[in-house]
Amino acid sequence: MFPRLHPQVVQPLDFNRRYITAELLFALLPSLQSLLHECRKVRRYPSFTSSSITSIFIQQLIFHCDCIVVCRFTDLSVLEKKKLTIMGERVVLHYFNGRGKMESIRWLLTVAEVEFDEKLLDTREEYLKLVNDGKLMFQQVPLVEIDGMRLVQTKAILNYLAEKFNMHGKDLKDRVMINMYSEGLMDLMEMIMVLPFNPDPTAKLEEIEKKAKERYLPVYEKALTGPVYLVGGKLSLADVLLVECTLMLEEKFAGILKEFSAVKSFQGRMIQIPAINRFLQPGSKRKPPPGENYAKAVVEVFQIKI
Amino acid sequence: MFPRLHPQVVQPLDFNRRYITAELLFALLPSLQSLLHECRKVRRYPSFTSSSITSIFIQQLIFHCDCIVVCRFTDLSVLEKKKLTIMGERVVLHYFNGRGKMESIRWLLTVAEVEFDEKLLDTREEYLKLVNDGKLMFQQVPLVEIDGMRLVQTKAILNYLAEKFNMHGKDLKDRVMINMYSEGLMDLMEMIMVLPFNPDPTAKLEEIEKKAKERYLPVYEKALTGPVYLVGGKLSLADVLLVECTLMLEEKFAGILKEFSAVKSFQGRMIQIPAINRFLQPGSKRKPPPGENYAKAVVEVFQIKI
Repeated sequence: MFPRLHPQVVQPLDFNRRYITAELLFALLPSLQSLLHECRKVRRYPSFTSSSITSIFIQQLIFHCDCIVVCRFTDLSVLEKKKLTIMGERVVLHYFNGRGKMESIRWLLTVAEVEFDEKLLDTREEYLKLVNDGKLMFQQVPLVEIDGMRLVQTKAILNYLAEKFNMHGKDLKDRVMINMYSEGLMDLMEMIMVLPFNPDPTAKLEEIEKKAKERYLPVYEKALTGPVYLVGGKLSLADVLLVECTLMLEEKFAGILKEFSAVKSFQGRMIQIPAINRFLQPGSKRKPPPGENYAKAVVEVFQIKI
Repeated sequence: MFPRLHPQVVQPLDFNRRYITAELLFALLPSLQSLLHECRKVRRYPSFTSSSITSIFIQQLIFHCDCIVVCRFTDLSVLEKKKLTIMGERVVLHYFNGRGKMESIRWLLTVAEVEFDEKLLDTREEYLKLVNDGKLMFQQVPLVEIDGMRLVQTKAILNYLAEKFNMHGKDLKDRVMINMYSEGLMDLMEMIMVLPFNPDPTAKLEEIEKKAKERYLPVYEKALTGPVYLVGGKLSLADVLLVECTLMLEEKFAGILKEFSAVKSFQGRMIQIPAINRFLQPGSKRKPPPGENYAKAVVEVFQIKI
């Protein structure tokens, strides 16, 4: 038999008083997660009760352990977070000491309340060591070590985390909306992200401001006129990227949100979320706007010719 | 009661002889799809039989219709395709008469055996009409009309189609691998895609060849040494992008796959798939490498200053 979870570990998970082994619970997480999604969908068809589907699943479970924890349709992503802590696994981010492509990943982990460590890349030697150790699939960072995997490619990482931590919509239609909104925000943030490597950023800045005002912000203003979140009445990856993006825009163009009151209110609500509020305080893992040192490190590490 | 599906419609779906109403079946598709995923996962735990979960679901279903079709764990994406045909919905692609960002979408629909119509964008007026009609979320194409939605942003569209047509992995870990491989291929194809807008493409071409050989192809060579497909022993979005990308590379750099025999064999197998084979014949919806007219149309429509 597996050792039982210690009561002190179980209680913060808000379960009933019966215990389950940690290993089994975590082995079953993917199945439970799918089952929960399934049950949520089924609720749309009134006479399909989710409890009957669950009960058969639970009966099967009981063959595996003599005491069983039922998650009572709570948010299973809580378990995913606890799993990382209980198993002693730490999420490790490898990137420069600056925002770049990693900053959205830092934001998403923060909102999911997942703690992470950072290995900051300063020199070309450190980068070559990662390459030579075979840790970088395409010789690029961001690299995120999580769940025994080495993840690369920013968007693949964001989608993985969003799905894992239940911020990627309840179905296919939600998900495609979240992805559309997210891709737009990443396009806009990318323009700002590459500014430190542009020898003449002034003309580019004007273009970015114009596009932000005419192409991007009106989309989010419309989507948030009424709803609290962008998609499905629930916090998602797209919301996290939007709050990051609006703060980034305001750093460059003070007052840019004046004509976008719904977006501004959304930002106000989001920064009240305790995890985000802490992230915005000095001393957090949030990185400052890129300075000279950041650009120099990137240019040196990748030997970029500007 | 709903009208029953005509036997001629039912039989090609390879069901047993009992019928279900079309509307109900399609309404239930998302649930069935999740259930199927769930059952596949559960199989990893020997004494969880998938049939017991299915049977309780089916019993609930029987309250809704007096005759029921069970999909016997076949690939439900077949139903998604049939749905589009039976419901008379056509997928409509809006893009230039060229590859660009739409070509991977054309490839994916082709492999999924989904028929689509194309509205080709030639003039700025046609583009402005799409913008003014509010059809383009970010004033950009590709635009894909499907399932009553107007989808934009290439990657959001590809992910939607891949998930819908069961080419996006069986779980979170498969999916992140598929996304990592896909993002790498899209980075590489993007470099080739923007060549027609580069005033001096020769130096760029050399850089692309070097990166293809040193950074990208070795990754796929390693992944395909042994396995038939890139992820999870099953055809996915990443495989479709890889065959598209290898053909694109060979157009520019004949013989580039010589040192990558596993990738070359993979390409050989993929082009034998009947849908792909037809797509590669003259007269299909596959677009030729970009010529002058394509670049001119893009520059005119978007008023790009080069």
